[in-house]
Amino acid sequence: MNIALLPGDGIGPEVIAQAVKVVKAVGKKFGHTINFEEGVVGATAIDQTGDPYPDATHEVCLRADAVLFGAIGDPKYDNDPKAKVRPEQGLLAMRKKLGLFANVRPTFTFPSLVHKSPLKLERVEGVDFVFFRELTGGVYFGEPRGRNEQGTKAFDTNVYTKEEISRLARMGFEAAQKRRKILTCVDKANVLATSRLWRETVQELAPEYPDVKVEYEFVDAVAMRLIQWPKAYDVLITENLFGDILTDEASVISGSMGLMPSASVGTENKLFEPIHGSYPQAAGKDIANPLATVLSAAMMFEYAFDMKAEAQAISDVVNKSLAEGIVTEDIAEGGKAYKTSEVGDWLA
Amino acid sequence: MNIALLPGDGIGPEVIAQAVKVVKAVGKKFGHTINFEEGVVGATAIDQTGDPYPDATHEVCLRADAVLFGAIGDPKYDNDPKAKVRPEQGLLAMRKKLGLFANVRPTFTFPSLVHKSPLKLERVEGVDFVFFRELTGGVYFGEPRGRNEQGTKAFDTNVYTKEEISRLARMGFEAAQKRRKILTCVDKANVLATSRLWRETVQELAPEYPDVKVEYEFVDAVAMRLIQWPKAYDVLITENLFGDILTDEASVISGSMGLMPSASVGTENKLFEPIHGSYPQAAGKDIANPLATVLSAAMMFEYAFDMKAEAQAISDVVNKSLAEGIVTEDIAEGGKAYKTSEVGDWLA
Ligand SMILES: CC(C)[C@H](C(=O)O)[C@@H](O)C(=O)O
Ligand SMILES: CC(C)[C@H](C(=O)O)[C@@H](O)C(=O)O
Repeated sequence: MNIALLPGDGIGPEVIAQAVKVVKAVGKKFGHTINFEEGVVGATAIDQTGDPYPDATHEVCLRADAVLFGAIGDPKYDNDPKAKVRPEQGLLAMRKKLGLFANVRPTFTFPSLVHKSPLKLERVEGVDFVFFRELTGGVYFGEPRGRNEQGTKAFDTNVYTKEEISRLARMGFEAAQKRRKILTCVDKANVLATSRLWRETVQELAPEYPDVKVEYEFVDAVAMRLIQWPKAYDVLITENLFGDILTDEASVISGSMGLMPSASVGTENKLFEPIHGSYPQAAGKDIANPLATVLSAAMMFEYAFDMKAEAQAISDVVNKSLAEGIVTEDIAEGGKAYKTSEVGDWLA
Repeated sequence: MNIALLPGDGIGPEVIAQAVKVVKAVGKKFGHTINFEEGVVGATAIDQTGDPYPDATHEVCLRADAVLFGAIGDPKYDNDPKAKVRPEQGLLAMRKKLGLFANVRPTFTFPSLVHKSPLKLERVEGVDFVFFRELTGGVYFGEPRGRNEQGTKAFDTNVYTKEEISRLARMGFEAAQKRRKILTCVDKANVLATSRLWRETVQELAPEYPDVKVEYEFVDAVAMRLIQWPKAYDVLITENLFGDILTDEASVISGSMGLMPSASVGTENKLFEPIHGSYPQAAGKDIANPLATVLSAAMMFEYAFDMKAEAQAISDVVNKSLAEGIVTEDIAEGGKAYKTSEVGDWLA
């Protein structure tokens, strides 16, 4: 197995390092030969090469069977609306060039952490849903985008083809068939032409999945219900921008944001990453929680290599670390706080 | 004072009727002559005239000093992506034609209802912020929008001018000066050209309001923090679509969605409405909570007529109804549930 490592910015390198320890340990235990190759991305890549997703990094990803990604983002770029190159452009270029059209974001709770949720226990206990966010279309990539000549007017274009919608929707339908069989199509069909195409396309596909109950909800209503009654959801499908907002909203309800993994998949390539950001304030301090990245490696074994036992071994040891309190300060709750690297060593 | 009444669909007519009782009582008590003129809007207007915002209704609004609006929306239009006329088009036409460029949405808690919040008490108690959502620009109105010839591709355009941004932002800055002096500009400047113009414009205005602390946050981050720590916010400004999603998310955290009023204001016209929808399941049953509409009437006295005492009289009687349990079933909590009309009579 060839795994590309893209640590990125902030705490990225630290959390990726722990995942690597765990992946190596799994390789040893199950007798797999695992090769790693590293690439730079994000602010780190801009500093080194001027390009947030250099060709050399793209080559590394293409050669690999799966990509393990940390995080990108550096505050020095955030408040400069005129910056020419931004770390996030690397992320978008990577998604587009690798064809990662579906971002798979599960939300579930850990019994030992659910009390940390901002929501009341009865609302959140047992929550278990998964978002399929379209990742290479919509307003993130649509043209034209920019300014008029005087710079006094700006515009972006949201655009979707039936093809882009149906390949994402099919992934959602298939996931729903293996789960509780409820698919929620999230759109703004009362206002947007793109959303009406989403709804129409999903309506056309629905008869092929007669066992799946399909619901259509407006994005603003979902933003409410995710807080009011998140247990109602099973599989949600949505466009890029709505997915950006709603998956982040969803991520805080479980009380264990530092543990949530994700996958971004396409026809050829697959990338796995924690949902948390680059958390620059914690960078280099050996305090970041590595569990989301470690669980992303578990997702990698399952989804990229179809190795369920290996994935299970990782989830098991993560649960054990939670049960025994071998955790970083963010979830230590008055118990001993372990360093990022100590948690990684223990898990491995 | 001339007030236009636009009851709209679903529970709209019932809740507007209670607000009218209260406004009449206030008129009597304070010695104002108040005239009402009614107009149709939404699904009701489509059924009667084929147009969700008929010219006759627009005339009624133009003649009035303020508009009191119920709600629009009918499920029979929701799942038909090909419907030619939609009730929501009436809402959008109304906003555009009346020039209502700022939607003002306060979120605050009522001590007697805060326990109904889905959030834990310590997170939500004392929350007090207000959104200024841009309401007549962005992707709701941008051109081009539609489909390609084969119907396989759809597109929408998000567009903003500096002018549109600064008039909304100035309202936010001024509100912040009268409040806790924190302004949060919510955008997606790491991806969208329109958002970069928002951020740039706000940065240019900031020196004119040196007493206001300005923060810039990405829309996905705000979607999280609104749940994690909503007390951090004071005044938030944002574009139309982000505002749609975030104000609805914000509306559920107080535990008293049925009580939240709003104003939509422009240079010439002012409209007041409850933030809840048309709630078709409850229509005609005399069970809908009229308090949000009644409090919208209070906002009207304050913002359209600069009559603080009249506004205060309404808030006071609403608080009294809560204290004495003269409330509808949604907030009766095991106590006697009063009918919509009974609550209106009592308040008046
Ligand atoms: C950094 C940004 C461009 C990115 C996005 O909006 O897609 C991030 O928020 C995410 O969700 O991965
Ligand atoms: C009905 C719809 C067009 C409207 C909007 O999105 O503006 C509504 O959700 C609102 O927020 O008033």
